[in-house]
Amino acid sequence: MAGSTFGKLFQISTWGESHGKALGVVIDGCPAGIPLSEEDIQKDLDKRKPGQSPFSTPRKEPDQVEILSGVFEGKTTGTPISLIVYNTNQRSYDYTEISKSYRPGHADYTYNMKYGFRDYRGGGRSSGRETTARVAAGAIAKKILEEIGVQITTYTLSIGPITVDKTHFDKNEIFSNFLGMPDPIAAKKAADFLMEQKEKKDSTGGVIECIVNGLPAGVGEPVFEKLDAMLAKALFSIGAVKGVEFGAGFSAATMSGSQNNDFLRSNTEGKVEKLTNYAGGIIGGISDGFPIECRVAFKPTPSIGMIQKTISTEGENIDLQVEGRHDPIIVPRAVIVVEAMVAITLVDYLFQGILSRMDRIKQVFTNNEKKL
Amino acid sequence: MAGSTFGKLFQISTWGESHGKALGVVIDGCPAGIPLSEEDIQKDLDKRKPGQSPFSTPRKEPDQVEILSGVFEGKTTGTPISLIVYNTNQRSYDYTEISKSYRPGHADYTYNMKYGFRDYRGGGRSSGRETTARVAAGAIAKKILEEIGVQITTYTLSIGPITVDKTHFDKNEIFSNFLGMPDPIAAKKAADFLMEQKEKKDSTGGVIECIVNGLPAGVGEPVFEKLDAMLAKALFSIGAVKGVEFGAGFSAATMSGSQNNDFLRSNTEGKVEKLTNYAGGIIGGISDGFPIECRVAFKPTPSIGMIQKTISTEGENIDLQVEGRHDPIIVPRAVIVVEAMVAITLVDYLFQGILSRMDRIKQVFTNNEKKL
Amino acid sequence: MAGSTFGKLFQISTWGESHGKALGVVIDGCPAGIPLSEEDIQKDLDKRKPGQSPFSTPRKEPDQVEILSGVFEGKTTGTPISLIVYNTNQRSYDYTEISKSYRPGHADYTYNMKYGFRDYRGGGRSSGRETTARVAAGAIAKKILEEIGVQITTYTLSIGPITVDKTHFDKNEIFSNFLGMPDPIAAKKAADFLMEQKEKKDSTGGVIECIVNGLPAGVGEPVFEKLDAMLAKALFSIGAVKGVEFGAGFSAATMSGSQNNDFLRSNTEGKVEKLTNYAGGIIGGISDGFPIECRVAFKPTPSIGMIQKTISTEGENIDLQVEGRHDPIIVPRAVIVVEAMVAITLVDYLFQGILSRMDRIKQVFTNNEKKL
Amino acid sequence: MAGSTFGKLFQISTWGESHGKALGVVIDGCPAGIPLSEEDIQKDLDKRKPGQSPFSTPRKEPDQVEILSGVFEGKTTGTPISLIVYNTNQRSYDYTEISKSYRPGHADYTYNMKYGFRDYRGGGRSSGRETTARVAAGAIAKKILEEIGVQITTYTLSIGPITVDKTHFDKNEIFSNFLGMPDPIAAKKAADFLMEQKEKKDSTGGVIECIVNGLPAGVGEPVFEKLDAMLAKALFSIGAVKGVEFGAGFSAATMSGSQNNDFLRSNTEGKVEKLTNYAGGIIGGISDGFPIECRVAFKPTPSIGMIQKTISTEGENIDLQVEGRHDPIIVPRAVIVVEAMVAITLVDYLFQGILSRMDRIKQVFTNNEKKL
Repeated sequence: MAGSTFGKLFQISTWGESHGKALGVVIDGCPAGIPLSEEDIQKDLDKRKPGQSPFSTPRKEPDQVEILSGVFEGKTTGTPISLIVYNTNQRSYDYTEISKSYRPGHADYTYNMKYGFRDYRGGGRSSGRETTARVAAGAIAKKILEEIGVQITTYTLSIGPITVDKTHFDKNEIFSNFLGMPDPIAAKKAADFLMEQKEKKDSTGGVIECIVNGLPAGVGEPVFEKLDAMLAKALFSIGAVKGVEFGAGFSAATMSGSQNNDFLRSNTEGKVEKLTNYAGGIIGGISDGFPIECRVAFKPTPSIGMIQKTISTEGENIDLQVEGRHDPIIVPRAVIVVEAMVAITLVDYLFQGILSRMDRIKQVFTNNEKKL
Repeated sequence: MAGSTFGKLFQISTWGESHGKALGVVIDGCPAGIPLSEEDIQKDLDKRKPGQSPFSTPRKEPDQVEILSGVFEGKTTGTPISLIVYNTNQRSYDYTEISKSYRPGHADYTYNMKYGFRDYRGGGRSSGRETTARVAAGAIAKKILEEIGVQITTYTLSIGPITVDKTHFDKNEIFSNFLGMPDPIAAKKAADFLMEQKEKKDSTGGVIECIVNGLPAGVGEPVFEKLDAMLAKALFSIGAVKGVEFGAGFSAATMSGSQNNDFLRSNTEGKVEKLTNYAGGIIGGISDGFPIECRVAFKPTPSIGMIQKTISTEGENIDLQVEGRHDPIIVPRAVIVVEAMVAITLVDYLFQGILSRMDRIKQVFTNNEKKL
Repeated sequence: MAGSTFGKLFQISTWGESHGKALGVVIDGCPAGIPLSEEDIQKDLDKRKPGQSPFSTPRKEPDQVEILSGVFEGKTTGTPISLIVYNTNQRSYDYTEISKSYRPGHADYTYNMKYGFRDYRGGGRSSGRETTARVAAGAIAKKILEEIGVQITTYTLSIGPITVDKTHFDKNEIFSNFLGMPDPIAAKKAADFLMEQKEKKDSTGGVIECIVNGLPAGVGEPVFEKLDAMLAKALFSIGAVKGVEFGAGFSAATMSGSQNNDFLRSNTEGKVEKLTNYAGGIIGGISDGFPIECRVAFKPTPSIGMIQKTISTEGENIDLQVEGRHDPIIVPRAVIVVEAMVAITLVDYLFQGILSRMDRIKQVFTNNEKKL
Repeated sequence: MAGSTFGKLFQISTWGESHGKALGVVIDGCPAGIPLSEEDIQKDLDKRKPGQSPFSTPRKEPDQVEILSGVFEGKTTGTPISLIVYNTNQRSYDYTEISKSYRPGHADYTYNMKYGFRDYRGGGRSSGRETTARVAAGAIAKKILEEIGVQITTYTLSIGPITVDKTHFDKNEIFSNFLGMPDPIAAKKAADFLMEQKEKKDSTGGVIECIVNGLPAGVGEPVFEKLDAMLAKALFSIGAVKGVEFGAGFSAATMSGSQNNDFLRSNTEGKVEKLTNYAGGIIGGISDGFPIECRVAFKPTPSIGMIQKTISTEGENIDLQVEGRHDPIIVPRAVIVVEAMVAITLVDYLFQGILSRMDRIKQVFTNNEKKL
């Protein structure tokens, strides 16, 4: 069970290795009638593309997406949408050394233990390159969310010790600086910090925050399929993620109930409001109609230029120095990946939610005589 | 899609409301031939049972489990095991007021938005009482893990501001103090703190830690079904959980790569060792053979005796005081619930892992001629 | 993977053995707001109940259903509905002989090969008694279909060599004669034939036909999840079924295309009509708005009073005579089981169908502001 | 839910339209370590390829398969195998007329009802061309079955009124005559019959039979996931299938129990034998170790050259004559498709079966220390 499929009703299946011929994704369960072009998808892929900043790997890949099926006359047909991105930057390279050792912090050892061997040319399926397919699928999910009026805002909250000051929050900054930070001052500091790490041939971690607006109340399923549970799974499925929290998150553990409970109020127009949002927009696994707030902690890039201790595949203790220029941070390029995974999850749950009540189900049938 | 089923191969489906006739679980996919009695399950249920400490709700429920199917002559048959626990503590009670308002911090509002109405006699499916069924299923999962040599240790790491001092770690303390803390000194401080909160009619949150030993390397599936991703889903599916982290967790975000990478070494006996375990036993979503370490943050009990602001189901602003004695902390009774969810997830993944390699699959067939 | 769950969105999980404490089913994914009582379910269970005719097993079971969860104030809550039926007719009985041999035509041998042992007191999960749970779940599915305007008519088409003459078709006959035949003349002949078989301590097979009216066009999913494919799975999951066909069925194999193609026409009111229905209401796996027609072939009851050759569990050749009175035909009691499986499948597919088009999905959101 | 995924553990997802850029399949859950080349797959694709006989559509497609992922150094890696076949035979063509009418016997009408529009250039996902992807996946499934010692034999049993005489059975004939018939005399008659149909611009149906040898006893899951139930679903998922039966099939309905029950015997070497195989190798949904036997009825090709009555998409009554040369029979090219679907299903069930017993599960762990 290779585990490359995500979602129940809006289902994506990704395939491809970092150093294989191509990567791709099949999206099954996308409703018919949505306008869709390659440009809609390329827009998001370009945000993830390598080689765009001094802090991202210099591997140049155009990452050009091609729609192979599921779209006819510019609209989705309701059948599987197959997307492909060719790997064009495959140089001949001597993998002899890499093939014989386990890089620290990488999945080399665990893949070998599981499968008995591995595609040593890169991370294979554990490579960050695999997220290309997620971003492509996410772009389609975001098109669906737009039609329903749901917006997602995702950004770098912190890099190493430098955190965004929310009083400086500027949404337009997010995709205009190299680091995805909505605060130009923090971005400048973080860039300096990253330069230092890079010079030391070291790397650093960071935190991404994601806010969802416009999601109706009532989305999410009880017990095991809670909305936050599935979002957490989606986010932890991104390589390098070590922590996920919603609303008050870990700080809720030190709060008192009287602080942490969000009080509901009716405003003067009779609309429901909340005085706080420590719940992060989800209670009992179901959305409450207020913004979803979550944070995702990423570990530092494991590929660093420093000499590291490890073992060879034969079990000998060795010193390993991985050549090449390394990306000192994963976070900025992961912003659009986090957004994609949140979008894909939300579409799946919005579809599930439609089926919660008999009155809504009857609505669909009443309006469509003699055919579904 | 009500979401009450968990697991792919070892699959549990829970049912029942806090104030209904009974609660139960159907376990489908339990292999044949495992010795199983009601006592095996009761042992764990007794750890979750209410009314055992000054800090747990005084509702007295014997929570007696009954095996209805799937066991014959003391062994599992390979077919569904149905377990039932009757709700015996259902007093007549006037629910008029509760039925007309949304309790802050509870899922009352979100369930109403989703389903159009709700079982107002308690939390329904969002009640902590639902976890009875998980604990029952978890006891069976733990029996399977025992046969394979996997052990889980779960405990309260912190309550409000008081955290366990690991230099005092004593495993025997966990189920001997009321709070599930493996450190008697911290437990004493936490008890005092809780007494204060209780007197203020307030509550507090806390953190549970879970350590898994003996899990082989190679367990977990790539990409979306990473072992940590599924454990996170399992843990976030427990009501009141707001954060989950593995290994270094959120602190990895401020570490450098050279710190965070765990170095592999061969020891003098040729066995693989790791110098650190910041990965928490999982890399690339696959176990590395070292202890799995995760932490789970719980919010404070939302039911508190203080007067709180909220709205009625008619949308009027009201002040609500929920009567009765309230449990000032969720964490101690949740320890066995966390353990159950981890156990259930691990069994499912151990089973999936068997199918990763053709040589292992052939092994099974070779050893069993003319029949599977 | 014990395989006791059916359905994707409207999902049922059955449990229980023929000679265990009880049988039951958990229905997950039933929308909220449907009026439901135990009587609604009992009505169908009474049609399957043993001991009602000279041709059904004399085992007397009241088969009284109890709703344990998922219904509040007379309406479904949207959370799992747990139903239980206790086995009350468990006499002490000497199973020594049965436990040591494999009954021909029964699953004794295959269960032993699979699980290493079996519950020898009856068929365990392979017993026809397991269908009690399906009928209970089917009653709920039929309530949902009623709300949407779908009707199912199911009846015995043939018993051994005697087939219903459709020119005598009388729907009221179906549940008024013992045999479920909509033709009183055929029913009389079949009863005589069965009496003969019974006297010979032998049994016979038969065919059940099922017609669905009122199903909208557009229900069913392409490729692997075709509506007929899933109905076939549902029907073959009933023990003793050996063949399933839709519309022209096996006879289509000898027809020419010009005969077999159903021609579409607009009638004078502009409504679409079909001149024939050889497709049985399904083309490309999707309903065409005309009646679904399928036929299901049942093998003879394997339990017969005659002496039969078989082997013991030790592998010795033996002659076996199974004592007790035996039911000479499965078909009449299976009519309501076939209907249940068709109903359960249709509900699942109607729910899936809602998600085929973006315009329908938007409809649901547009009509429900600020909440799902 | 577009329904293009099949299987639980060995899972295939197909995509692509008959007149799109390409068709493909992603195989997820294929164990690591199986030698696999494009030739292994091409071999089966060549059996399905059009333009090879006077009775198959003259559309010339090389149907060249390309492996895009999941294979490294000639062996499967355990991660998704992505296969692609480009559509090369796309001429410019005037689809105006076809786009405005519903072809009788095709899914044009039902797809339009479901999705609101359709890819009118061909059958889209309902085209027989979709089965290319199944055959490619089936070739991989068959490689796995070979390793375990399971063989599948599939052939044309009848074409229109002409049926194979089993006393002439010659396995080598199957892929040497154009019709997949294991009897050269029947094949000659069938060819003459088809020529007549072709001259009349008409078509005919037929039956395919599939025999599985070497499958161990104990494969299949109880209740809803019976082996025959899933095989039936797999077979009915092939377009144009109208009936499926196992063993005695529909004829079981007219047999007596004493005839239909297969008697078990121990032979002189102590091996279990069956005196008959009316069960077709499956009892209670579980294989009994004897050959699986099933038959699949196909309707005639719906595309015929004769003038047919139908309606336009605007609802007008029209006469339609579909130009071009038409294939007078589906059956011969469907032989390898039936075999593929059976193989895919069996692999999935063999994998599931491994998990039936704790002793087998422990075997895997015992033999693999410190790692899975």
